[in-house]
Amino acid sequence: MTLLNAERLYATMERNGLDAIVATSPENVTYSSGYWALSQWIRRGPQTYVIWPARGRGAPRIVASAGLLDLLADQEVNVEDVSKFGAFFVAVDGDAELSAADRRQADLYGLPDDGNANVSLAAALTEMGLGKARIGVDEGGLAPALDAFSPEWSEDATVLPAFQVFRQVRAVKTEEEIARLGKAAAIAEASIEAALRIAAPGVSEAEMGLEFNLETVRQGGLPVLYCIGTGPRSAMPNVQPGERKLKDGDIIRFDVGGRYKHYRADIARIAVLGTPTQKIRTYHNALYKGVERGLELLRPGARAAEIFDAVVETVRQEGIPHYQRSHVGHGIGLDGYDLPSLSPGSADIIEEGMVLCVETPYYELGFGGLQVENMVVVRADGIQSLMGTDGKLRILS
Amino acid sequence: MTLLNAERLYATMERNGLDAIVATSPENVTYSSGYWALSQWIRRGPQTYVIWPARGRGAPRIVASAGLLDLLADQEVNVEDVSKFGAFFVAVDGDAELSAADRRQADLYGLPDDGNANVSLAAALTEMGLGKARIGVDEGGLAPALDAFSPEWSEDATVLPAFQVFRQVRAVKTEEEIARLGKAAAIAEASIEAALRIAAPGVSEAEMGLEFNLETVRQGGLPVLYCIGTGPRSAMPNVQPGERKLKDGDIIRFDVGGRYKHYRADIARIAVLGTPTQKIRTYHNALYKGVERGLELLRPGARAAEIFDAVVETVRQEGIPHYQRSHVGHGIGLDGYDLPSLSPGSADIIEEGMVLCVETPYYELGFGGLQVENMVVVRADGIQSLMGTDGKLRILS
Repeated sequence: MTLLNAERLYATMERNGLDAIVATSPENVTYSSGYWALSQWIRRGPQTYVIWPARGRGAPRIVASAGLLDLLADQEVNVEDVSKFGAFFVAVDGDAELSAADRRQADLYGLPDDGNANVSLAAALTEMGLGKARIGVDEGGLAPALDAFSPEWSEDATVLPAFQVFRQVRAVKTEEEIARLGKAAAIAEASIEAALRIAAPGVSEAEMGLEFNLETVRQGGLPVLYCIGTGPRSAMPNVQPGERKLKDGDIIRFDVGGRYKHYRADIARIAVLGTPTQKIRTYHNALYKGVERGLELLRPGARAAEIFDAVVETVRQEGIPHYQRSHVGHGIGLDGYDLPSLSPGSADIIEEGMVLCVETPYYELGFGGLQVENMVVVRADGIQSLMGTDGKLRILS
Repeated sequence: MTLLNAERLYATMERNGLDAIVATSPENVTYSSGYWALSQWIRRGPQTYVIWPARGRGAPRIVASAGLLDLLADQEVNVEDVSKFGAFFVAVDGDAELSAADRRQADLYGLPDDGNANVSLAAALTEMGLGKARIGVDEGGLAPALDAFSPEWSEDATVLPAFQVFRQVRAVKTEEEIARLGKAAAIAEASIEAALRIAAPGVSEAEMGLEFNLETVRQGGLPVLYCIGTGPRSAMPNVQPGERKLKDGDIIRFDVGGRYKHYRADIARIAVLGTPTQKIRTYHNALYKGVERGLELLRPGARAAEIFDAVVETVRQEGIPHYQRSHVGHGIGLDGYDLPSLSPGSADIIEEGMVLCVETPYYELGFGGLQVENMVVVRADGIQSLMGTDGKLRILS
């Protein structure tokens, strides 16, 4: 049940000539070890690392704060070796029979205290025979004060930035990741349904937003993105649910997605309360056709930049001649914007196992916003949709 | 309705000899401008800045990504000047009458595109007459690739780290901040009540966790911290609600708090299902007395380190002779750990307007975890509690 594609990590390290790689940002720590170290996810600053040596160079190791060792004992973590830093006080009831998780915790608390994260990382690298190695360090999570590119411990080692290396690895998903992303997408769709169930004249964006987030939580997700705008406010790209009340003829735009088991969703759907104008129908159909075109072209070996061109061209021909976009899609995973990027300057090539959001948003001040965004997996012979609905204009009567 | 304590910011800049300060992390951007720039809050990497010149050196300015300008127009933002970077396509309906927010958006999209965040920041500083100034840069949010301490634009300027400077400023709260923190605390307490309403033999931690998070969302909050553990699992400091089912005599430990209008809560309460053992009663009472002692001592001018000593000593004398802790409290605000820190090495002095979590957690493997944690504001003559419940042991019959 690992999230990590170890084969791809090893191959990417070889291609980059790395003896080891160090994960520091929450996404990369969880990805490479399964360890979800609470504090670094909900705050900026707390440090947790995973050191992963190149193929044949030994076992990986987690460098963790003493205050977070309990989560190592209570989660499915695929890295066994641990270095610890910091003091944290946990007593043990000598009369009690400890559970396996408690015994593991007691062992972990008993590890020597390396003092701080920086020293602990240096000591671990040395112990692992990597003190003079070529090491890729994910600069995304390393506290700025530690200076990612010339850390204290690097005197004899060569340190290279590796945030982008991890992004390359994470671009192709394992089946466990795909299952989580599929559930995250399903939760987002169910949450849109929950919001639309109360849609009626006089109902506010905030009221729909509340129904949306409650359904997300009810289904085991956490609210993250819930841009829900009505009428002219739907034109705001990042619209946060406000006090505006629904009126007949309004567009309702959802650009939404929470987190499920740490994995993100990002989808978009449009409904109209009552009868849509011809402009809404024509424009939405053009955007829908654009996404359809993108999904047709999305197969292993395709060039991301060419898909971008084809999608934009389709939207223009199908009804929005002035359509312009900076991108028409992106990967998704532990981060809301994984690789690849379906954009004009992109050198990305589509691979089997990538999970993408393909989207054609359109924003027009004074009119409104329209958007289709679908989550799909790239399989050997084309896409497998993670969506239960088709993304056509939804008319609420 | 500003969050910012401008007077304290100016005074802190003067004391640090700064001509200007640049906010880069989400907390400091929102704090200093009111601007909540979605992407930087839900991902790592997206850049947003606020430049705040020293007193008398001119007006502050926001440096924002083109894709997030709509939120500037739709939020209560107390900084008017804006620099923009990046391309983002939004059309305008020439036939429609635009709302004030839409007109503001149209104006913002019309700003020149500075290319990227780094260039935009440099250009803004130069325009503001700060090109050769002494500038404090909050290193907390600056993308590591931009190298916080010798960024490209700093050739003629002196750049100093300012993450800690902002923490100093944010340590004393404005009344608007206190109001939000009070509501966040109230939501956390109400969410504990919601979870306890279903507590009964056979009910799982996960089921209580769901009720907890649903209530948080229902009351306008977002779930962040929801450590809820039962029986021996309550000893895990960061316990995530799992499948263990409640049994008679179990401890239920809550260490919890979501976000309300971006402000955090962090409180702890203990319940026991059925009759508590004498050990639970004695230990919990000792922890309760420890917090009580801390709250008595918490007044302007008090030394944080002395409060720590007194609290630990009280817990020891009242019933847990072996009690040990690394801290017994911390500030709270936009971040879950603001200044001050009630810890042995702390040089912090308590000031009027600080909001603190005072806490005495105790973890014992094989037995369980007990904890009292209250949120309070420091007023001129002592504390004002933000809690509606007293933190005594709650017995569920």
